[in-house]
Amino acid sequence: MESFFSFLEKRADDCSSLLCIGLDPHAKDLSAPTAAAARDFCLNLVKQTSRYAAAFKPNAAFFEVFGADGWIALKDVIEAIQEESHRMGSMIPVVLDAKRGDIASTAEAYARSAFENLGAHCITLSPYLGRDSIEPFIQESEKGVFLLCKTSNPGSTDLQDVLVLNHERGNTKEDDLLPLSSFVPLHIKVAQLAQQWNTRNNIGLVVGATYPETLVRVREVVPDMWFLAPGVGAQGGELETALTAGLRKDGKGMLLPVSRTIARAEKPGFAAAELRDEILAIRASIKGNQQ
Amino acid sequence: MESFFSFLEKRADDCSSLLCIGLDPHAKDLSAPTAAAARDFCLNLVKQTSRYAAAFKPNAAFFEVFGADGWIALKDVIEAIQEESHRMGSMIPVVLDAKRGDIASTAEAYARSAFENLGAHCITLSPYLGRDSIEPFIQESEKGVFLLCKTSNPGSTDLQDVLVLNHERGNTKEDDLLPLSSFVPLHIKVAQLAQQWNTRNNIGLVVGATYPETLVRVREVVPDMWFLAPGVGAQGGELETALTAGLRKDGKGMLLPVSRTIARAEKPGFAAAELRDEILAIRASIKGNQQ
Repeated sequence: MESFFSFLEKRADDCSSLLCIGLDPHAKDLSAPTAAAARDFCLNLVKQTSRYAAAFKPNAAFFEVFGADGWIALKDVIEAIQEESHRMGSMIPVVLDAKRGDIASTAEAYARSAFENLGAHCITLSPYLGRDSIEPFIQESEKGVFLLCKTSNPGSTDLQDVLVLNHERGNTKEDDLLPLSSFVPLHIKVAQLAQQWNTRNNIGLVVGATYPETLVRVREVVPDMWFLAPGVGAQGGELETALTAGLRKDGKGMLLPVSRTIARAEKPGFAAAELRDEILAIRASIKGNQQ
Repeated sequence: MESFFSFLEKRADDCSSLLCIGLDPHAKDLSAPTAAAARDFCLNLVKQTSRYAAAFKPNAAFFEVFGADGWIALKDVIEAIQEESHRMGSMIPVVLDAKRGDIASTAEAYARSAFENLGAHCITLSPYLGRDSIEPFIQESEKGVFLLCKTSNPGSTDLQDVLVLNHERGNTKEDDLLPLSSFVPLHIKVAQLAQQWNTRNNIGLVVGATYPETLVRVREVVPDMWFLAPGVGAQGGELETALTAGLRKDGKGMLLPVSRTIARAEKPGFAAAELRDEILAIRASIKGNQQ
């Protein structure tokens, strides 16, 4: 059985793209504030951009807000992605952006909801509850998770950047003095744990494209892991800096989610193609510089 | 407009109870694996235990797992709690256990889903994304949140217990030596932030009843805040130790969620009454010891 990330990599190769098309049916972008309008908005986006999509990322909140009807629309959208995949002869992974995080039987229920009922292949999760909250989602290697590591919002500094002790406390005594070099930001600790937990090649990390220095540091900790790197486009990340900082040596390992920039373009398919090509050009130039 | 926690406190006084009845329709407790069975299971529990419930806590995952039908069932259950409240003449708060955590317009959509569409009064949230991820949920003081601080699962040690620098880095240089006393566990940092953010009396903390020493330390940081303290009952917390450690000086400030112990009892109403009385007795004895 292939792992989630070998599946994603195959698709990224098939379409020569690192774009992850966000399906965020904001009320203000819809023809009417209804689940049906949200579904139609997403179906149109899927149809127009599927050729350039390494993955699609529906955002659970914008469906959930329509209650039961929204839930049906979300399932419809994921089914439409699967149909589009079959039509093209290349399966497109679906990353459910849900940022869940709970324990034991509750986590199992969320995993069943995302993977079995909705048919997603991957889900975003918060790491705050620790390993046992992740376990139910990664038991089958073909299903994957992206753990929140360093997010692109201003409030990400509140917890994710606090300095934490970088080793077991061991025999350290209350009055021992520790050098600052014993500490790393919390998001680095999360990357270290993710690296330990990733025995089935199905854990990736969310690292904001808006923080190139962080991308570099996290990449050092997890040389082979995939990042979901939001912030390109509407959130103002600079594409070239981000790619230089975060790509793996093989020119892959970064999935760039874009939603508003493409959804609000006059021709979303054209906008996706342009961005895909821009990424390819930057990647080629980075490779050229390395040689 | 009253704040969420003055609303909760009024209800806790009305029913002389600190019990939060968990509505966790586990598939194995249901007559059939359907949303209708989940709804009936919860409606029965609401009816039998409402007299002793300071709050009800439906767990979103166990409804979400049934897709759109589950969402309808969840809304039905919350409506039934409101009807039961009107019948008794004392409003019972509904805490949606959803552990959401996202940013900007996504967080706004989750808030609208929980408070406006479903009619919950409070929601559990992960603090990992920082203040701006909490803000959309606490803008109206009558709606509340419980932030995850120290959870009751084994994996809670992975991140929540790591030692973090307890002050701004300021002028600290790379080769400065810092005493261990400069550090606190991450969950204490979360409590400190929650205390800063709680300007509208609508933020509480999730602190596992299974960690009495942690309850004591967190209580020192947030003397007036409400805890949602899981772990009593099926998870093995010892009631008296937990109450002694976590109650506020006024004998309130702790909401004790219980689900399986009561849901699986032969007579759930009787089990809830017994547990409510046991808590009252312990509280009285603690007060006696203090005098």
